[in-house]
Amino acid sequence: MDRKSVVLELALRRKTVRKFGPEVPRREDVLYALEAAKEAPSGMNAQPWRFLVVDSPELKEMIRVACEAAERAFHAKVRGEWGEWLREKGFTPDKPFLTEAPYLILVFARAEAPFWLQSTWLAIGYVLLALEERGLSTVTYTPPDPKAIGELVGAPGGYKLQTILPVGLPADPKPKYQRKGLEEVVAFNRFPTEA
Amino acid sequence: MDRKSVVLELALRRKTVRKFGPEVPRREDVLYALEAAKEAPSGMNAQPWRFLVVDSPELKEMIRVACEAAERAFHAKVRGEWGEWLREKGFTPDKPFLTEAPYLILVFARAEAPFWLQSTWLAIGYVLLALEERGLSTVTYTPPDPKAIGELVGAPGGYKLQTILPVGLPADPKPKYQRKGLEEVVAFNRFPTEA
Repeated sequence: MDRKSVVLELALRRKTVRKFGPEVPRREDVLYALEAAKEAPSGMNAQPWRFLVVDSPELKEMIRVACEAAERAFHAKVRGEWGEWLREKGFTPDKPFLTEAPYLILVFARAEAPFWLQSTWLAIGYVLLALEERGLSTVTYTPPDPKAIGELVGAPGGYKLQTILPVGLPADPKPKYQRKGLEEVVAFNRFPTEA
Repeated sequence: MDRKSVVLELALRRKTVRKFGPEVPRREDVLYALEAAKEAPSGMNAQPWRFLVVDSPELKEMIRVACEAAERAFHAKVRGEWGEWLREKGFTPDKPFLTEAPYLILVFARAEAPFWLQSTWLAIGYVLLALEERGLSTVTYTPPDPKAIGELVGAPGGYKLQTILPVGLPADPKPKYQRKGLEEVVAFNRFPTEA
């Protein structure tokens, strides 16, 4: 492997995974990803992120129940392009990965410092690549009622739940969705004039 | 180097850089980072990002002039914690890195798909690590008047400028800002009750 292309290889290999094998990865591999994440830059170096690693089966079950209740309410009202996409891809309010994954990483952000949301999601990019490097998979699941989940786990005041990352060994037959070609997303100096 | 810790090593090594050496890196190293970024996951796989690589000196100058004009207006009105931080760190409306960096990567996002902002910033995390891997440095500069810059470069309708990443070889004596310890940003199962 060309050492100088590790990031690209990880990015190419990584796909979203919603089904996990029964093996429990080492906690240190999960923490590895958070060690990397906390080195990300942030507005005013505020490091607005807080990570909660959940492996208690009871707590995962409570999180799943709360998320699925909110999903049912969301699915009942979602319309348009997004609703069509969910139906077409076979998404339902059931989120079994929230109990099947050996770990859940709940990512919170303190909504105060400048660019707190941008900084936190940039750090989530680090998490995904670091997990992939250790052979772990995830999906950036965004619960429809983040506030309820934050209360369930005693999130500190002012911290907003951004995503739940279920983490485990991949056992999802779905292929990676295809990406656009580089020439479709990159231009030089000026965007070409659209006809 | 332990191959299995490349992401962490890159994350640790990477620091924000605002001064660049005169050498012009290869365009393919800049594109390498965007090849990685376009593999990031996104809501509905919408891939809401578009990247504009600017190396025209005239265009960099126009971008700098527009950004500095907006910076002067911003600095004149910024108050509170953010204003204090800017003064304390010696930030002024001058943004020489916008012309001194051999390249500017302008990252745009189409503000339509679900989670377009989150997805785009996650992909920016990929960009930073991939640049670092190729020995290139940057700062996630967020211009105060992104719309003006978008118009300057002919951004397609609906695309919002998220950041300008000046890219080059590092020549910034400033050290990396220190990060919190892992135990300060990670908890297990439930957040500790605050006294």
